Amino acid sequence: MRTLSVESIDNLALGAAVLGTGGGGDPYLGRLMAKEAIREKGDVRLLDPDEVPDDALVIPSAMMGAPSVMLEKLPNGNEPQAAFQAVESYFGKKAFAVMPIEAGGINSCIPVYTAARLGLPLVDCDAMGRAFPEIQMTTLTIGGINASPMVCCDERGNKVLIEALSNSWAESISRAVTISMGLASMIGLYMLDGKALKRWSVRGTVSLAIEIGRRIADAGRGKLDPVESILELTKGYRLFVGKVIDVQRSLTTGFVRGTASFEGLEGHKGALFEVHFQNENLIGLRDREPCAMVPDLITVLDRETGRPITTEHLRYGQRVVIIGMPCSPIWRTEAGLCLVGPRYFKYDRDYVPLEKLAGRAGR
Amino acid sequence: MRTLSVESIDNLALGAAVLGTGGGGDPYLGRLMAKEAIREKGDVRLLDPDEVPDDALVIPSAMMGAPSVMLEKLPNGNEPQAAFQAVESYFGKKAFAVMPIEAGGINSCIPVYTAARLGLPLVDCDAMGRAFPEIQMTTLTIGGINASPMVCCDERGNKVLIEALSNSWAESISRAVTISMGLASMIGLYMLDGKALKRWSVRGTVSLAIEIGRRIADAGRGKLDPVESILELTKGYRLFVGKVIDVQRSLTTGFVRGTASFEGLEGHKGALFEVHFQNENLIGLRDREPCAMVPDLITVLDRETGRPITTEHLRYGQRVVIIGMPCSPIWRTEAGLCLVGPRYFKYDRDYVPLEKLAGRAGR
Repeated sequence: MRTLSVESIDNLALGAAVLGTGGGGDPYLGRLMAKEAIREKGDVRLLDPDEVPDDALVIPSAMMGAPSVMLEKLPNGNEPQAAFQAVESYFGKKAFAVMPIEAGGINSCIPVYTAARLGLPLVDCDAMGRAFPEIQMTTLTIGGINASPMVCCDERGNKVLIEALSNSWAESISRAVTISMGLASMIGLYMLDGKALKRWSVRGTVSLAIEIGRRIADAGRGKLDPVESILELTKGYRLFVGKVIDVQRSLTTGFVRGTASFEGLEGHKGALFEVHFQNENLIGLRDREPCAMVPDLITVLDRETGRPITTEHLRYGQRVVIIGMPCSPIWRTEAGLCLVGPRYFKYDRDYVPLEKLAGRAGR
Repeated sequence: MRTLSVESIDNLALGAAVLGTGGGGDPYLGRLMAKEAIREKGDVRLLDPDEVPDDALVIPSAMMGAPSVMLEKLPNGNEPQAAFQAVESYFGKKAFAVMPIEAGGINSCIPVYTAARLGLPLVDCDAMGRAFPEIQMTTLTIGGINASPMVCCDERGNKVLIEALSNSWAESISRAVTISMGLASMIGLYMLDGKALKRWSVRGTVSLAIEIGRRIADAGRGKLDPVESILELTKGYRLFVGKVIDVQRSLTTGFVRGTASFEGLEGHKGALFEVHFQNENLIGLRDREPCAMVPDLITVLDRETGRPITTEHLRYGQRVVIIGMPCSPIWRTEAGLCLVGPRYFKYDRDYVPLEKLAGRAGR
């Protein structure tokens, strides 16, 4: 058993933002909330999925909505817990632990916050191994686990309990609810038992994020090349080195959608790179040829510090390294690609694994 | 105690559509559902509010959404009951009776359907004395009664329970949910006790609707001038006799919004009449001068038969009589006008009672 202290939160938020592939929310807010809760309530125990009894209940805790909005529409601090406890009381049972639904700046910290506030442990896993924009895009959906009952709470005190027929319906309805709440809500959903957790969660996501964060932080102290260090840990590829020359971004139907363009530097001079995103980065094109595609991870890092840059923080002139990291193997199955493959996101392309695409382009 | 038989449903639906002021849904579907349920389960008892014990619970049952959509997206028949019972189980108490939330073709029949299916009586009242487009527009809101917990169910089996901070928030969130369900849902909401019912409901709406319907039906048998007969019963005014020359209608943000234009016939030759609607008719203008405005009732009747024409059934060339009827006095209070007066609907006009406007125009 390990614990999450105030000190580990910075690393967690930083590393989770790398796995968040541009989405998952700005780490700043989540980090503050998680630290504050740990300071008040004490360290949070981090459990391996194998430490959760088969019949014990675990509930993911998260924020839903457009990351850009979360920067301005601040939570009141009771919503994550209210949503979590509403799911508990639906079943009339207490949860044994909290888990993250995804890796991402805010959504790695919110479950720590909820766990600290409720005095519960956090499970070292998530349901994506990265961040995705929609509720049904989890390994739990592949395992036949219901997102419902799902609860959305806002900072005013509005609370909505959704019993949806399918996880796609849970997405449609909760998206509409979240939009009506002002584009951001705190959610509890996908309650599952220890047995299902062991079978269907993506293991080790929390500790992986903390280790990525630690390496970036250490690099800042001059110890290592941060990008190389991340690539080594995640078996990733350096896709492009360049400068941001354009960012098209719009808030539509509850998402931040857009395209970022980069012109090459160093060995990539004269080349053009484009990243398309819907909250998260979905596809990376070098001179219009795909270098990496969803569900593999595409993350934009600051060239000097290795710190991840989320889609809402991309700005003209930033010098960046764009990296690709292979997704959890479950996403490369037929069921996985049906949920989160390029065609789901309306790209007329079959999925090609990162190793093949990036190998072709040269690491 | 009276009862609602299969025979009374036609009159109820017909008369309620007159009080529905163009909205409240097409009567056809609600009528079929209510008749079918009565045939299967037996007549529904109709109670006066005074027959409901002070501590007994009453729940309104209704359909929410755009009437035009309800004509094509048919219910499966279990949703009204599912929504009603979800409100009951929230409180862990059984309801004593069902009540209509509004008068309107479909929303006068749905509560009869729910009452028949559950073997409960229906209370002879509603919460508007007419139809209105939004959830918070009830006399119950004026009485401080919460619309929440509110439940929305769709024909697929999706169910959403809303605990909103205010009745306006209940409207915003449930509207988003209803839109995500395909623009129509069945709802249960505004649970109240007998004491509040006696104080805040609009009494006699069901029996008034049945009597209006009976008079129209009788007129069809050549007994009476139907329009005169309705005006006599409702203390209404004949505002215009004319022909539909244009209907602008759009489905936006979950409502049917638009304007119908009429050119004068008989004594009104050369004059132009316009009716603006948002599901319900909101304002009637003769040669650009208001003749009637919300919350007073404006209804378009077929000139020959006196049958009401809902906004979605207005067609070029129809010969019509447009009538105005005074609203329940509670709507003319400051609190009432704040909720449903012309300014709420973005008309830059103070409310003037029908009696004054129509009196000026000449009956």
